[in-house]
Amino acid sequence: MSSSDLDTLTRRLREFADARDWEQFHSPKNLTMALSVEVAEIVEHFQWLSEAQSNDLPEQTLDKVAAELADTLLYLVRLADKLDIDLLDAARRKIEINEQKYPVEKSRGNAKKYTDLE
Amino acid sequence: MSSSDLDTLTRRLREFADARDWEQFHSPKNLTMALSVEVAEIVEHFQWLSEAQSNDLPEQTLDKVAAELADTLLYLVRLADKLDIDLLDAARRKIEINEQKYPVEKSRGNAKKYTDLE
Amino acid sequence: MSSSDLDTLTRRLREFADARDWEQFHSPKNLTMALSVEVAEIVEHFQWLSEAQSNDLPEQTLDKVAAELADTLLYLVRLADKLDIDLLDAARRKIEINEQKYPVEKSRGNAKKYTDLE
Amino acid sequence: MSSSDLDTLTRRLREFADARDWEQFHSPKNLTMALSVEVAEIVEHFQWLSEAQSNDLPEQTLDKVAAELADTLLYLVRLADKLDIDLLDAARRKIEINEQKYPVEKSRGNAKKYTDLE
Repeated sequence: MSSSDLDTLTRRLREFADARDWEQFHSPKNLTMALSVEVAEIVEHFQWLSEAQSNDLPEQTLDKVAAELADTLLYLVRLADKLDIDLLDAARRKIEINEQKYPVEKSRGNAKKYTDLE
Repeated sequence: MSSSDLDTLTRRLREFADARDWEQFHSPKNLTMALSVEVAEIVEHFQWLSEAQSNDLPEQTLDKVAAELADTLLYLVRLADKLDIDLLDAARRKIEINEQKYPVEKSRGNAKKYTDLE
Repeated sequence: MSSSDLDTLTRRLREFADARDWEQFHSPKNLTMALSVEVAEIVEHFQWLSEAQSNDLPEQTLDKVAAELADTLLYLVRLADKLDIDLLDAARRKIEINEQKYPVEKSRGNAKKYTDLE
Repeated sequence: MSSSDLDTLTRRLREFADARDWEQFHSPKNLTMALSVEVAEIVEHFQWLSEAQSNDLPEQTLDKVAAELADTLLYLVRLADKLDIDLLDAARRKIEINEQKYPVEKSRGNAKKYTDLE
């Protein structure tokens, strides 16, 4: 049974929206906006920190960041469900593509190569 | 064994970054930026579509969107790993919080209530 | 005297940051993050609205949106200043490029063409 | 004559959209999405750079970043026009609010205070 954890989340979110009659708001267009807003709430915690500070968050901040990561995952799972995309399968395929695109030999510690990753 | 699918992704991404000596670029600060860039690549596909059109993407567009959703999940999983956050556990707790915050009776089809969701 | 309005804003923001010793936080990297957070605060107001509703905001919402647009402009001006970019000049050049790229005849009401705008 | 530079941009963009019959795509909702996509294209240039590197971009990168800043300003001006918001006036009022909110004495070099800026 592949993607069982995300499948369970998917079902719970579907029931959640359904019970509240919120499906009407959950067009993929709207969900992409909600997703981008959640990610910005993560970014907000990091915007004035140095990279070193970002590796060493106070516990209270870390709890807030964890909640924002959770919100991001929830909207991502909801969006994938509305678009009928198998998120876990897409992620596995993407890793394989990246492994071909960035062979270890050529990519090692190479920031320039790395910059072209996207 | 909880969160096994995301655990497997987490390990593969860790090995991927490690083999290429890319850990040096993966500060949480940088990863939040990369995450926001990936989400914008999803948004880009939807910005000029109506909500109805967003529910009915051409297959070719859908494939591209699936790849962007995958990229978003990969950076989200990577970021959670660097921050030592259990993403699936955080998501489950967030659903429980939302279930308390938005009781079915009061929230039913209520756009105004909904708007306050975040 | 070109770009006088934005020049004035630029100077006021420079003095504002300088007086508070905040230049240390205003690396271009950090300012791009702050800019993206402000834009998400605009998006937040529109995420669950229909396009028609977005054209007809209640006055109170409109005031809040105006304040978020202002924040976005302020960070954009600050970022341009730190990078020594003449924002108004860059905008004028971009309009000319777009006028060449999207000739009126071929672009008229063409959503498909439009989708390729970016 | 207040806001003359932005007024001129506003008119040119209105004529540009009008001539191409693109007003139909320019709902405030859609324009906020386009704005967020443009900002992400700025972020993309900075995501893997250190703060020091972000202060010292190669000229070729700087030209690309200038074009993205321009796109961001153009969509921001267009959005303000569609919402009938005087962008420059809103920006001036916001600076005054910030001057009251962050008195020089208390804010000087204070990262903690700064973090609460938004």
